[in-house]
Amino acid sequence: MVKLWEINLNNYDWKNNRKYETIFTLANGYRGFRGIQDFSKRYECGNFIAGIFDKNDAQVTEIVNCQNPLLLNIYFDNELVDIDTSEVINFERKLNMKEGVLYSTYSLKLPSGRMVKIDKERFVSRNNVHRYGEKIKIKPLNFSGKMFVENLIDGSVTNSTYDPYNRSKHIRVEKALDLKPGILLSTKTIDKGIEIVEATTIYAECEGENIFKSRKFSNFGEVSREVYEAFVKEGKEFVLFKYGTTFTSRDSNLDLINLTKVELDEFLKQGYEDEKQKHINVWEELWNKIDIQINGDEAAQIGIRFNLFQLASSAYEGDTRVSIAAKALHGEGYKGHVFWDTETFMLPFFIYTNPKVARALLMYRYNTLDGARKNAKMNGYKGAQFPWESADDGLEVTPKWGFGYNGEPIRIWTGEEEFHINADISFAVWEYYRATGDEDFWLNYGIEIILDTAKFWNSRLEYNKEYDRYEINKVIGPDEFHEHVNNNVFTNYLAKWNMKKAVEVAKQLNQINLNKYRALCNNLCLSEIDFNEWENRLNKIYIPMAKDGKLIEQFEGYFELADIPITKYDSNGMPKWPDLKGLKLHDTQLIKQADIVMLMLMLEDEFSDEVKKINYEYYEKRTMHKSSLSPSMYSIMGLKVGDRQNSYKYFMKTIYTDIEDNQGNAAHGLHAASTGGSWQSAVFGFGGFSIDNEEIPNFNPWIPENWNEFSYKLNWKGTELRITIDKEKVGVRADNDILVKIYGNKFNLVKDEEIFVSR
Amino acid sequence: MVKLWEINLNNYDWKNNRKYETIFTLANGYRGFRGIQDFSKRYECGNFIAGIFDKNDAQVTEIVNCQNPLLLNIYFDNELVDIDTSEVINFERKLNMKEGVLYSTYSLKLPSGRMVKIDKERFVSRNNVHRYGEKIKIKPLNFSGKMFVENLIDGSVTNSTYDPYNRSKHIRVEKALDLKPGILLSTKTIDKGIEIVEATTIYAECEGENIFKSRKFSNFGEVSREVYEAFVKEGKEFVLFKYGTTFTSRDSNLDLINLTKVELDEFLKQGYEDEKQKHINVWEELWNKIDIQINGDEAAQIGIRFNLFQLASSAYEGDTRVSIAAKALHGEGYKGHVFWDTETFMLPFFIYTNPKVARALLMYRYNTLDGARKNAKMNGYKGAQFPWESADDGLEVTPKWGFGYNGEPIRIWTGEEEFHINADISFAVWEYYRATGDEDFWLNYGIEIILDTAKFWNSRLEYNKEYDRYEINKVIGPDEFHEHVNNNVFTNYLAKWNMKKAVEVAKQLNQINLNKYRALCNNLCLSEIDFNEWENRLNKIYIPMAKDGKLIEQFEGYFELADIPITKYDSNGMPKWPDLKGLKLHDTQLIKQADIVMLMLMLEDEFSDEVKKINYEYYEKRTMHKSSLSPSMYSIMGLKVGDRQNSYKYFMKTIYTDIEDNQGNAAHGLHAASTGGSWQSAVFGFGGFSIDNEEIPNFNPWIPENWNEFSYKLNWKGTELRITIDKEKVGVRADNDILVKIYGNKFNLVKDEEIFVSR
Repeated sequence: MVKLWEINLNNYDWKNNRKYETIFTLANGYRGFRGIQDFSKRYECGNFIAGIFDKNDAQVTEIVNCQNPLLLNIYFDNELVDIDTSEVINFERKLNMKEGVLYSTYSLKLPSGRMVKIDKERFVSRNNVHRYGEKIKIKPLNFSGKMFVENLIDGSVTNSTYDPYNRSKHIRVEKALDLKPGILLSTKTIDKGIEIVEATTIYAECEGENIFKSRKFSNFGEVSREVYEAFVKEGKEFVLFKYGTTFTSRDSNLDLINLTKVELDEFLKQGYEDEKQKHINVWEELWNKIDIQINGDEAAQIGIRFNLFQLASSAYEGDTRVSIAAKALHGEGYKGHVFWDTETFMLPFFIYTNPKVARALLMYRYNTLDGARKNAKMNGYKGAQFPWESADDGLEVTPKWGFGYNGEPIRIWTGEEEFHINADISFAVWEYYRATGDEDFWLNYGIEIILDTAKFWNSRLEYNKEYDRYEINKVIGPDEFHEHVNNNVFTNYLAKWNMKKAVEVAKQLNQINLNKYRALCNNLCLSEIDFNEWENRLNKIYIPMAKDGKLIEQFEGYFELADIPITKYDSNGMPKWPDLKGLKLHDTQLIKQADIVMLMLMLEDEFSDEVKKINYEYYEKRTMHKSSLSPSMYSIMGLKVGDRQNSYKYFMKTIYTDIEDNQGNAAHGLHAASTGGSWQSAVFGFGGFSIDNEEIPNFNPWIPENWNEFSYKLNWKGTELRITIDKEKVGVRADNDILVKIYGNKFNLVKDEEIFVSR
Repeated sequence: MVKLWEINLNNYDWKNNRKYETIFTLANGYRGFRGIQDFSKRYECGNFIAGIFDKNDAQVTEIVNCQNPLLLNIYFDNELVDIDTSEVINFERKLNMKEGVLYSTYSLKLPSGRMVKIDKERFVSRNNVHRYGEKIKIKPLNFSGKMFVENLIDGSVTNSTYDPYNRSKHIRVEKALDLKPGILLSTKTIDKGIEIVEATTIYAECEGENIFKSRKFSNFGEVSREVYEAFVKEGKEFVLFKYGTTFTSRDSNLDLINLTKVELDEFLKQGYEDEKQKHINVWEELWNKIDIQINGDEAAQIGIRFNLFQLASSAYEGDTRVSIAAKALHGEGYKGHVFWDTETFMLPFFIYTNPKVARALLMYRYNTLDGARKNAKMNGYKGAQFPWESADDGLEVTPKWGFGYNGEPIRIWTGEEEFHINADISFAVWEYYRATGDEDFWLNYGIEIILDTAKFWNSRLEYNKEYDRYEINKVIGPDEFHEHVNNNVFTNYLAKWNMKKAVEVAKQLNQINLNKYRALCNNLCLSEIDFNEWENRLNKIYIPMAKDGKLIEQFEGYFELADIPITKYDSNGMPKWPDLKGLKLHDTQLIKQADIVMLMLMLEDEFSDEVKKINYEYYEKRTMHKSSLSPSMYSIMGLKVGDRQNSYKYFMKTIYTDIEDNQGNAAHGLHAASTGGSWQSAVFGFGGFSIDNEEIPNFNPWIPENWNEFSYKLNWKGTELRITIDKEKVGVRADNDILVKIYGNKFNLVKDEEIFVSR
């Protein structure tokens, strides 16, 4: 069933171009190409190379929109093939997720009456991340004559194309070269002078023979261009191949121009089809690890695959100096910055399906520790304070000002107040280590992160003498409707966890690896005195609670706010704004997204089923889901507390965030956290996977009525498990002997032998 | 009647954009701005500054399309005002020719539903050719909110935008500066490094108050940009003013950047309305000299004014190193090259209405004499051989290859064979001198041109011993259907005239100004021996004739070609191709354009009325009018020989060449020769103006039935004459005492006293 692997678009409306640029982005971790509409000038191009940031005159440091090497213009006797001026007779774009190839078919009637059929495909190689290719079949349907093909690399690209006031240019064109065949354009970023080299070449054949008759190279200021002339015949199809290669000074110290040229030559020698097949093979291997199969629910099947595809596309193990931005490599939204989204929402997918990538992502945090230390110093704290928004060096890059719904300037406080990111990262480090047992990472990098963030937290605590407790005041928790709040439980709980884990880890290290312990203590300026102090203090960190000791108060004073629960839902089952009766949002108990519920998922064992249920039910009625990070978490918790109907609704909402653009801003890039949330919702939610205090994999799956079979794979400490749930039973198989719990009962799995448990 | 001064366009179809860019071009002799459609991205911009040529990698030296300072983007809350994505509710563009102002009115509904009304005007100052301005009134009809205005100078402009293979870039961006307020972009041409500086600034006000709230400058590679932020209110109109100034290193040796900036400051200080009024005043003065009034025939009235307007716009007296290109300052057609079109078709208009401009145009030929001498030397001739196509230095720049109707390469021979240009220029020099008595020009420049072209002709003559005659073989006459012909009468006749005039002039000069005579002889290496030789030879130049001695044979052997006269005409009365029965065009007597008829107009007194009539009737049936230079000439000759019906038809065809795009290529620029032909057709044709051998102004007017009154002005040797023809009589008035002939009778006009003669 190819259909279950495809995202299709069957009609053309230029107004949707920017949204589909995101949906049809092809990325390989090294770079992302937005899926700009072929043969249209109405686009927001995107060539994002992971890790290339620049500020120049922009508000804050942002991901650089590099020179665009994807422009290819076709002219018949000087008439440009332009979909926006043509009659669109046939139109289909489909993202084949199994192959990682974007296919398009167009039948166009040009203003002159010329009719042409074009089949186009593109891949951005996962086999060799420096390569991408296109194959374009063109058939003149009712004419013969001259054709010109213009292959361009456009260095005039800016960021914020559609935001005139904030538009900013981050590259300076350095060289435009004729590679004969092929063209090259090299640029440098303004601030740091990172060199970016793009090279591309095309060739065309009909019945195996080259059809190009003449060629001209031009260097137009910021554009490198080659134009070919050919004669085409009515009814005769010919094929055009476009080869592209990319290198930057982040990749190599060698002569980049030569490197890119040689790569292009090699790619040409190897051939388009061969590279494409190798790319598909890598995707096959990837899918073998990450695929989630939902039999009986096509929408869910296609939707979950889209999320897995785009999330897997957004990272690779080849670079430990980059992470996944909130909008991944799919758009300029949030300036290419990395948030807690990566560690808290996306990372579990990688930890449990592709640990090498998870490690690379965490190494990004390790490699930006110096920036985090500078943040702490600048703010008067100690240790490492990770930035709320992170670019290439770990310094805080959250903008201080943004715009509200009515265009009014709004002060953004998250960069100064949303501290929980530090515990989120430490938690992720531990989660990775717990799942993989990667001692090398743990000893050499992981522990250092946990200790230095604990050191930060300790410096951040405020002693309240009256109550003899430690507080963390003036913060923002995950729920960003409420700013400058005191003692946000999520923050305090995780800060406590962070410090506790640090103390525990330090003690262990002291025991098992004294050298390492001493080196770390020396490097981080810590000693047993500190660990003791942390231990004493962390138990006094204040956690606000309702009087019954069960309903958690999101932050101190939250329960005193006006209580205006949600009562109405839209056609998608999502909450509608209640009447605030003139109150400001922050004066109500309405929250933007999962906060307490999020905490109870992260530290699952610390909360009883009853507490979970009470809190879920309370907060579910007050959560507006104005962040794409929210529905997936309610989906999972819903399943844990028995709210199955809402779980499915939240799950579908999550997996269709971008495809249906249900947050209204898919144009700005992928909702990457939501892709991670989709995986979590499937695996932690319906798949019922969790790790208990004994570090035993638990499976408590439940699947909706309309699902015939649901299966996924997991990697636990090097063992691959495959879980299959159908209407009657749960099947678990592993490639090693392993102890698991299914519906609370222990089972000793024998290598490659599937066991079945009735539901 | 404003309407009689306007060219209107009332509906929008982007497919017509390029055509109307030409029609709505505003030029002031110094420069031309194509009238690109406001708020559209579908344009071929044109900022042509007279005299700036470059070759770089183009086929031949061509006029440079300079950086475009006219781009102005308006965004409402980041939504671009784009006419091509909007619903066009109201649309009007009108060229007010009286004022030289282009007015536009748009009511647009943007994709978001925002409705906006925009009134725009532009003038390119004739008061100060370095200035242009725009005034834009904007009214948000159904919304309030943020607005951004982006003022750009785009240095990424290339030539041949719509010809991908031949696209070429002639400017290199040098500096993009923030003038605070205002922006500047300077470029240099590739070959000669001519510096071009454009500066522009905008301001906006509502009820007298500045509405801009913030501003940002950017230098995006080849673009200099300023963007302003404002808040606009529903129903509240505001006004935006754009000021622009331009200088090039052709204009001054001073610091150009400073010059342009200072000019901008002065312009701002002076104010938009004041400069606009001064510009209108200059046009009022101009119209007072050039206007032709046709009462009773609105189409003819509007049409003739369009031609006068655009021709007058294409030249000014301020630069003697430039002439008018075949497409004027209105497009890239014919690469901005100057042909015989200027001297033969356009110059009479200037000679008789604005002699200072005529002199400047002829000075261009004088100033390119060195190039002409190089051409002669290169081709093995003597004297000065003016190029068939001329750019900035008089060297031959005709391309050697072009494309036929089916895209097949075609060898272009005109640059090697169309010699008559040399006599055309000499004839124009003499015509100017005859009309103006400008002794300074004549003695210091004019005679030198006539002598040195005569020297060329003498070296070009081929002696035919058999017949003891001189021939000019392997030439192209005005009729370009026939190449490599021998003894084209037009060429031979004018060569003879040129040599005869040279001998006559030399003899006179010898008599009246011996010093000058000697200096010229010395400089041109001529002596009485040469003049005698020329005199002997010129009388033996062969002029092919029919046996009756009346019907002239266009060239030797022409009458032996297959005779396939035209029998069918299209709805505009223009000839349809007869059935060639497999013959090649050059094997038939069909001709492209006026050739013999043209000759008989230029040297009117040398042909009897009978000869004119016989030849007109013969050639009229064989002329396809495949050049816009043709119908006007047939119109004039038709009146002289009594073919009045065709005359009107040809006149209307001529004056509507561009407005109705009846040659199908108005997009490429103005048919400038045709504008000159329009004036000639009106004044020499219907106005019946001619100069006889005694150098007395003759008037033999005739006007069509539907014309109530027809009037024009003339300048003859410093005297301004006004001729008015109505249904009954001809009125002539002069601002000096002067002798004229009306319908063959002499009249001594007394200053400022109109005389009337019955028709």
